[in-house]
Amino acid sequence: MSRKLNFSAGPAALPEEVLKQAQEEMLDWHGHGLSIMEMSHRSKEYVSVAEQAEQDLRDLMHVPDNYKVLFLQGGATSQFSMIPMNLLRGKKTADYINTGVWSIKAIKEAQRYCDVNIVATTEHNNFTSAPTQNQLKLDASAAYVHYTPNETIGGVEFDYIPDTGSVPLVADMSSSILSRAIDVSRFGLIYAGAQKNIGPAGLTVVIVRDDLIGQTLAGTPTMFDYAVHAASDSMNNTPPTFGWYLAGLIFQWLKRQGGVEGMEVINRRKAEKLYQAIDQSSFYANPVAIANRSWMNVPFTLADANLDNLFIEESEQAGLLNLKGHRSVGGMRASIYNAVPEAAVDALIEFMQYFESKHG
Amino acid sequence: MSRKLNFSAGPAALPEEVLKQAQEEMLDWHGHGLSIMEMSHRSKEYVSVAEQAEQDLRDLMHVPDNYKVLFLQGGATSQFSMIPMNLLRGKKTADYINTGVWSIKAIKEAQRYCDVNIVATTEHNNFTSAPTQNQLKLDASAAYVHYTPNETIGGVEFDYIPDTGSVPLVADMSSSILSRAIDVSRFGLIYAGAQKNIGPAGLTVVIVRDDLIGQTLAGTPTMFDYAVHAASDSMNNTPPTFGWYLAGLIFQWLKRQGGVEGMEVINRRKAEKLYQAIDQSSFYANPVAIANRSWMNVPFTLADANLDNLFIEESEQAGLLNLKGHRSVGGMRASIYNAVPEAAVDALIEFMQYFESKHG
Repeated sequence: MSRKLNFSAGPAALPEEVLKQAQEEMLDWHGHGLSIMEMSHRSKEYVSVAEQAEQDLRDLMHVPDNYKVLFLQGGATSQFSMIPMNLLRGKKTADYINTGVWSIKAIKEAQRYCDVNIVATTEHNNFTSAPTQNQLKLDASAAYVHYTPNETIGGVEFDYIPDTGSVPLVADMSSSILSRAIDVSRFGLIYAGAQKNIGPAGLTVVIVRDDLIGQTLAGTPTMFDYAVHAASDSMNNTPPTFGWYLAGLIFQWLKRQGGVEGMEVINRRKAEKLYQAIDQSSFYANPVAIANRSWMNVPFTLADANLDNLFIEESEQAGLLNLKGHRSVGGMRASIYNAVPEAAVDALIEFMQYFESKHG
Repeated sequence: MSRKLNFSAGPAALPEEVLKQAQEEMLDWHGHGLSIMEMSHRSKEYVSVAEQAEQDLRDLMHVPDNYKVLFLQGGATSQFSMIPMNLLRGKKTADYINTGVWSIKAIKEAQRYCDVNIVATTEHNNFTSAPTQNQLKLDASAAYVHYTPNETIGGVEFDYIPDTGSVPLVADMSSSILSRAIDVSRFGLIYAGAQKNIGPAGLTVVIVRDDLIGQTLAGTPTMFDYAVHAASDSMNNTPPTFGWYLAGLIFQWLKRQGGVEGMEVINRRKAEKLYQAIDQSSFYANPVAIANRSWMNVPFTLADANLDNLFIEESEQAGLLNLKGHRSVGGMRASIYNAVPEAAVDALIEFMQYFESKHG
């Protein structure tokens, strides 16, 4: 076995020690004679795994008691519908900030359920920055304000949490959850597909203030009702048991790394050294405003796009996987989530310098 | 490691050789240096895994070309909404057959979207039989006819496929899919949560005739639109990649067992010997009409319910897990899905006879 360095945007790298633990107990979980995948979700053993995972996530993010933590299916894309279906609560409009591909997806789905007020957009600069607080044209009567704190494709990250007054703030944290400390009480709802910083694909985490749930639009499917999931501890039906279990192992791993506060120190260092390597070179470039550069997704271009394929080819030969940029922006992208070790970033920088010296 | 015999109703036993294969390649899939869970769902390696799984399922079930095979999330419970939202196609009523707990769940959700016509119910005999074809009061103008071929809790299985003329037949096959050969062309739509005969929880398979999709109710979430999933090969967003992969390993395992036809022979034998052991005893009893006894879920009661806890305790000591019946019916239930080997059924019968001789 030879593990390579994986910069995939998602499904993304998982901590090797977590994979090893899951591997070891795959056929016989804690001496019970069966796999965690073969257990009833209502067995006391599985319920204890599920509850521990929730508690560990609450600990890591310091989730206040008046927030529900839900373990759901369907990805962030299902949340694009669930949010208006649950949070409009009789109102007709919602505010959305547009910072790129994922914001736009959320906006398009919301437009099927309400009037969407785009309170700021950075389309004019090709989504290479986040708007400032002063640029947000918020509507005090909106049902909620939605934004994407980190745009996975554009590599644009907000350097502040928008102040929306008494209007609930909703955040798609799929690619930034658990990467740094945040104040959950500033949010009405946080959601994240698991496959970047939480665990395997097929699990979605939702953290929602409990006064916001229970008033769905007519016709909302039962499985799209947060209140149903909250009332059943996310076991209204069979949950994605393996994903939930693996997320729990990752939460424990995060605690061993010093929690989110510990990861924040490492993530800042990883991002800073990679951006520094890009900026110090005239061969590599990143278009994003300094203040809004993502700690998790680092897109960069080569001075000569004709060298892109060679860069991919040689980087793969060097054991660096999945550096190709998203088809919509081209170039390269290194996703450096929590599970990507600092040594992998060091190896990437070394390779980039080698490639530049050879072909630059 | 000591594997026990697992009679869980779901999430249920998985084939040991499949678990071993998944375990072996968990950190390094086929020498690529990363886990299958760490791969982009759009990578050529993962797409080949996904496509092979679909093809193998098509082969196993002899799915005609005019049917789409979808790999979704949300469980059968999400299908309870998706079916009316997609298949009403402008009609106002749907026919439902009521044979127990899972039928009732499907009916209750459908009633939120249309008038539900109960075309037959076996509530009068406490859901211990399936209605006959002649007992179905079908409405030729209904959008579709829904039934539950195998009731997981009641252990009641249809011994025929209802003839619904030109009205599409919809079946919740969660607990019977792949257990015996069926003629898919008799159905408009087949759906199944994976966690019994397909793979781990968190994956749902839908097989739908392609002329039935593309006309959703107003307000249907994009992720609840079969046509969206069909057009994107079930990759409109990130699918549950590990579950899909593991289902593919199970499909290959099924092929090695002689396909569904081979499993049918084994499953018939497993069920027959277990029911025979129950019937030959005056200590154990099963209430279901002979013709409708499930091959997959075998509920049984003890002559003295005061012995139930002792039965559970001693069976666990003997290495037989999860025999406790569903809380709504009490007694015992042995779920003997494809992955439960015939030797496990033999061991169960042996234990039952031993327990009867000791306490009967």
